[in-house]
Amino acid sequence: MSKTYSYAALNTFSQQIFLKIGCSKEEAKIAAKSLLIADLRGVDSHGVARLSGYVRLWEAKRINPVPDIKIVHETPSTAVVDGDAGLGLVVAPFAMQVAIDKAKNVGTGWVSVKNSNHFGIAGSHAMMALQHDMIGIAMTNGSALVAPTFSIERMLGTNPIAVAIPTGNEQPFVADFATTTAANGKLEILQRKNQIAPVGWVQTKTGEPSVDASELKKGGAMLPLGGDREHGSHKGYALGSIVDIFSAILSGANYGPWVPPFPAYVPMPENMPGEGIGHFFGAMRIDSFRPAEDFKIHMDKWIKRFKASKTMEGQDRVYIPGEPEVEFENERMKNGIPLLKSVIEDLVNVGDKFGVTFSN
Amino acid sequence: MSKTYSYAALNTFSQQIFLKIGCSKEEAKIAAKSLLIADLRGVDSHGVARLSGYVRLWEAKRINPVPDIKIVHETPSTAVVDGDAGLGLVVAPFAMQVAIDKAKNVGTGWVSVKNSNHFGIAGSHAMMALQHDMIGIAMTNGSALVAPTFSIERMLGTNPIAVAIPTGNEQPFVADFATTTAANGKLEILQRKNQIAPVGWVQTKTGEPSVDASELKKGGAMLPLGGDREHGSHKGYALGSIVDIFSAILSGANYGPWVPPFPAYVPMPENMPGEGIGHFFGAMRIDSFRPAEDFKIHMDKWIKRFKASKTMEGQDRVYIPGEPEVEFENERMKNGIPLLKSVIEDLVNVGDKFGVTFSN
Repeated sequence: MSKTYSYAALNTFSQQIFLKIGCSKEEAKIAAKSLLIADLRGVDSHGVARLSGYVRLWEAKRINPVPDIKIVHETPSTAVVDGDAGLGLVVAPFAMQVAIDKAKNVGTGWVSVKNSNHFGIAGSHAMMALQHDMIGIAMTNGSALVAPTFSIERMLGTNPIAVAIPTGNEQPFVADFATTTAANGKLEILQRKNQIAPVGWVQTKTGEPSVDASELKKGGAMLPLGGDREHGSHKGYALGSIVDIFSAILSGANYGPWVPPFPAYVPMPENMPGEGIGHFFGAMRIDSFRPAEDFKIHMDKWIKRFKASKTMEGQDRVYIPGEPEVEFENERMKNGIPLLKSVIEDLVNVGDKFGVTFSN
Repeated sequence: MSKTYSYAALNTFSQQIFLKIGCSKEEAKIAAKSLLIADLRGVDSHGVARLSGYVRLWEAKRINPVPDIKIVHETPSTAVVDGDAGLGLVVAPFAMQVAIDKAKNVGTGWVSVKNSNHFGIAGSHAMMALQHDMIGIAMTNGSALVAPTFSIERMLGTNPIAVAIPTGNEQPFVADFATTTAANGKLEILQRKNQIAPVGWVQTKTGEPSVDASELKKGGAMLPLGGDREHGSHKGYALGSIVDIFSAILSGANYGPWVPPFPAYVPMPENMPGEGIGHFFGAMRIDSFRPAEDFKIHMDKWIKRFKASKTMEGQDRVYIPGEPEVEFENERMKNGIPLLKSVIEDLVNVGDKFGVTFSN
């Protein structure tokens, strides 16, 4: 069913493809790194499985391989970045770096981005802050798949939020999650396996609860974190809305049902009010609050205490956000990244387009 | 069962009580305003129903009525505020004002607070930013009631997050929610009515699902937003953790299971690693990203579109975060605030302590 590839091999292949669509050497390297970190951390839906999707967006002239990414407005602690329709995989690290630079100067930096595209996994950008002893925050909107509480219309993307927090001896705290009950990638896995979804993940086009993992193809919608009103779906809906507003209304990108879709074959929404998709990044220098060493001592204590908390029967541990991903990363760096047959075929085809060999 | 009181009457009474415990005139006014906004907005659990709780904390010498609230560390965009064990109802507006002042200067302001107490509803502080055309953010940790995913120990408070966003002609967007499936106040209401709770709100002390609204009294725990792992409880757990870390580890307050309890009769945790409880506030000046007028045009468009989204059968509208609270506010400003008999008795008793009449 699957075959295993080394990080280096997939990274080189991805770089080659990004070069072929016209990216500079430097940007091809950044884009491949943004992409591969998803595969390393076990978020298979957002890694090389999406490479062909980016290529199709480029073919549809929706991705500019040589963007002039720039700051269009700024204050000491804020900026708006125009991604010039570049790969989100490249625009996002640029914008996150702006946030980090501002944090160096005035304690924190906050950057809203317009005119971008899918940026891979949010966590990868948030984590850029860690090496600077900063807290990193990253979020993005996406095309509408999620119905607000009481609605049957798809109005929001799965709008993920990532927060990366430095530690001392413990692994960093890295939360990275869609503001829905479950990520869309999990529904896709169930579809491939022909399995049903738990109640609370999707609803039918008339708003009935459903366990059909293919419900989105039938006009249904994903549900905000919480699932239904009784279980707090209005909170997930509010969180997804905040991501949408910070990412797109602060910057001038598209929002709500007007966010452009990732699949190039899906028609663009009509009467779009902004430019491209939007992201939002933040960086907070720890020592703009207290000495980083003090902070890290207490973060380590926090993590140790939570790890030591009593588990329910049948569970052997309480996880810290980011811990499962680190385990994936260690394992996959050592033993390679498993790819499904369908993903391998897809990569072979992408390679063929450009005369680059992908060994299947 | 209930009787209705005017905002003015409850505000005056609350101010009188805060004066009696030794607050200055100015701070009594601020505290009463922070408290009453909860009653106005329909969050009955956090309004005058809690007045006697604050008095008991003062009696236990855990609230300092004449605090020297001050900035102990700062950069152009950040500060740490020491609340000097003051009423959170007063410490929070002080800290939020610091965030607003910093946003005026450098675009955004971010303030972490230690050595504070219960601050009322988060939304009231976040909303202070609105009149300055800023986005306001407020969060706080609280004493541990919530079990992380797979755990049976109470490790986190209900740790609410509020985000207030300015608009043009529409009512402001104000999200204000506990990072749990349901707020503790809702469990208390079910207990009073002797009703069961939906599955997903609480678990037993061994981690089994429960519908017993009194489960907390039996050693059980509340559940993070999401309810269980399959429905994303690890996301609610991550959110609650982020609130805890921003509020307490950035500032030097207590965190996790060491956060001091609100009820004065509950013993303090042992070996507390910090001072008091912690809050975190943010203010972002809209025009540090784009002209406020442009932003407001698009916020109004966002709100109108979401309000117009198709509803499921049996629902007549899709709510914008903060909309139900505004309806409460309008109605209660006009017709008064209904108080339960038990709350009225409580207020009469508080009044009796200090020779202040509360007409029941």
